Amino acid sequence: MPEKVLIYSRFPKAMVLRIGQRYDLMDAAGKPPNEMFAADQLAGVRAMITAGGTPLGADAMDSMPALQAIVCYGTGYDGIDLAAAASRKIAVANSPAANASSVSDIAMMLMLAVTRRLLPADDYVRSGNWSAAKPSPLMKSQPGNAGRRIGVYGMGEIGRRIAARAAAFEMDVAYYSRSKHDVPYRYLPSLEALVQWCSVLMIAVRAGADTQHAIDAGMLRKLGPDGYIVNISRGSVIDQQALVAALADKTIAGAGLDVYEKEPHPPDALTAFPNVVLTPHIGGHTVESHTAMQDCVMANLDAFFAGKRLPYPVTLMA
Amino acid sequence: MPEKVLIYSRFPKAMVLRIGQRYDLMDAAGKPPNEMFAADQLAGVRAMITAGGTPLGADAMDSMPALQAIVCYGTGYDGIDLAAAASRKIAVANSPAANASSVSDIAMMLMLAVTRRLLPADDYVRSGNWSAAKPSPLMKSQPGNAGRRIGVYGMGEIGRRIAARAAAFEMDVAYYSRSKHDVPYRYLPSLEALVQWCSVLMIAVRAGADTQHAIDAGMLRKLGPDGYIVNISRGSVIDQQALVAALADKTIAGAGLDVYEKEPHPPDALTAFPNVVLTPHIGGHTVESHTAMQDCVMANLDAFFAGKRLPYPVTLMA
Repeated sequence: MPEKVLIYSRFPKAMVLRIGQRYDLMDAAGKPPNEMFAADQLAGVRAMITAGGTPLGADAMDSMPALQAIVCYGTGYDGIDLAAAASRKIAVANSPAANASSVSDIAMMLMLAVTRRLLPADDYVRSGNWSAAKPSPLMKSQPGNAGRRIGVYGMGEIGRRIAARAAAFEMDVAYYSRSKHDVPYRYLPSLEALVQWCSVLMIAVRAGADTQHAIDAGMLRKLGPDGYIVNISRGSVIDQQALVAALADKTIAGAGLDVYEKEPHPPDALTAFPNVVLTPHIGGHTVESHTAMQDCVMANLDAFFAGKRLPYPVTLMA
Repeated sequence: MPEKVLIYSRFPKAMVLRIGQRYDLMDAAGKPPNEMFAADQLAGVRAMITAGGTPLGADAMDSMPALQAIVCYGTGYDGIDLAAAASRKIAVANSPAANASSVSDIAMMLMLAVTRRLLPADDYVRSGNWSAAKPSPLMKSQPGNAGRRIGVYGMGEIGRRIAARAAAFEMDVAYYSRSKHDVPYRYLPSLEALVQWCSVLMIAVRAGADTQHAIDAGMLRKLGPDGYIVNISRGSVIDQQALVAALADKTIAGAGLDVYEKEPHPPDALTAFPNVVLTPHIGGHTVESHTAMQDCVMANLDAFFAGKRLPYPVTLMA
C-alpha cells in the first residue's frame, strides 16, 4: 500500500500528478489540514509536500503528530517555521536549483520588458495607433541595457544565472550577499552600497526574517528616478506599500514583479500602473523546471520512506 | 551658411535634432521630395538622410540632380536601389553596429515574452483572474529556454550579440549565414538545415533581394508546432501572409516581431493573435543607440561635405 503524503499548499493537479502515481496524496488544498481531514486520517501522515512560501507553523505540524518530513516543492522554505520543525525533529527538504534557469529567464524578461516598455509597445501596435501614426509619449526612447549597472542582491543559484545573463547583455554587474563568492562580478559590501550604485536592482536573495522588507522606502529613494527593481524571489523582501508609493510618485522608474507580499493578491494600486510588468509567480513555471522539482520531491520522499538520509535537506543556519 | 540636407523618411523631430544644429534640414517627411519642394530647392541638395528600409529608387534620386550622398540612419540599406545609386555616382553610407546591442536586447525580450507568455501572464494578474484563482489555459507550463535549440539566421553584429546572449541563457546555439564565421557556435550549411534543427528561429540577416521571403510556408512547416520565430531584421525576410496562416493553424507555436512587411501597418490578422508579441520597430530605439546612429550620420555628412572619404560606406556586393 502506498504511503500517505499530505499536500499542504494549493497546487494544480498536473503539478503533483507524477507524485500521486507513487504516493497516496491527501490534498488539503491550502486549507488547515485539520479542517480537511479527520484526526485519525492525519495521525498516519509521516510526510508532507508544501510550497516553501506558504506559512507553515507549529499548529499545522501538531495536527499531524507522526509528521517527520516536510518536503518543499521549489527552492524556497521561508514559510516554514524551521525552529518549530527542529524542536519536533521534523526534517525539512527542498528542491534546490531545479528552477534556477527558469527563474533567471523570467528575471531578465521582466527587466527587458519594463525597461524597453514592451506592454505599451505591443498595445501601440495592436490598438492601431502605430498604423495611424498617433504620437505616444510612452514610445519615447529609453536608456538601453548595454552599459547599464545591474545590482544583483543574492548570489545563489539564481543570482549567478542572472549575473551571467546580464553580463552577456553587456551590462556592468555587481552584487551583494552575506558573503563574497568566487564569481567574476564586483562585490559591494552592503545592500545600501549596491542600491546606491545600480540602476537595475535584481532581488534574488533567499527570503527570511533577515531579508524581510530589506527594500524599504529609503532604499527605493537611493535607487532613484532612473532606477528599476525586479523581484523574482519573494514578495516579503520588498515593503510593497513603499514600492507602490515609489512607483506612484516616480521615486523610481518602474518595476518588474513575479512575486508579491500576499499571493495571489497583488494590490489594486500596483496593477493600475503602466510602468510595471507583472507576472503571477511563474518564475519556475516551465515543463523542465517542474520535472526537476518533482524529481527532487520524489527523491526526498523516497529516501525518507526508505529510512535513508534526505538528498536535499534544508539545514538551520547557526 | 549650413549645407542643405534632405530628410527623406518620416523621422520624429527629436531624432534629427542634433543633426539640424549643424545642417539645414529639408524635411520631406516620407513624401516624394518633388511633391514637397520646388525643383530649384532640390537642385541644391547634395546629401540626404534616409531610413534604410524606406524604398528609394531612381526617380527620387533624379529629383535631386546634385545628389552625391545617401546617408542611412541605422544599419539597414535594403530600401535603396544600390545599382541606381552606383550608376549616378551617388555614395551610400550607413550606421553600422550602432544599434546592435539595443536590437539584440529586443530580440531576446521578444523570445522570452512569447515563449514564457508574458502578455497573457501580465493580463492574468491585472484582470484579477489570478487573485480570483480563475483557471487559465494560457497559464499552463511551457517549455523553458535553457537547453532549447536556437537558430540564428545571419551572423553580423546583431546575430553575434543575439548568439552571445542566448548562450548565456544556456541555450544550444547554431547559425546559418552565407559564410562560416570565427564564432563559437555550430554552423549549419543551409537555412533549411537551421530551421529543421532549431525550435527558436532568430531572423538577424541583412535584408535584400536574396533574403526576400527566405522564410516561406515550407520553412514554417519545418519549424513546426513547437517552434517560435523572432524577427528584428526586416519584414521582407518573412512571407508575412504565410506567417499569419502558420500562426492561425498552429503550424508554429508563436512569433515575436519588431518588423513587418509594410510598416507601420501590420495586418489585422496578426494583431489579433494571442500567441504573438508585437513591437513597433523599436529594436534600435534606445537613447544610446540613437546617439550612436546620429554620430555615424554626422560623421558621414561631415566627411562628405569636407570632400573626404565616407567613414561608413556601403559597398555593392560583387
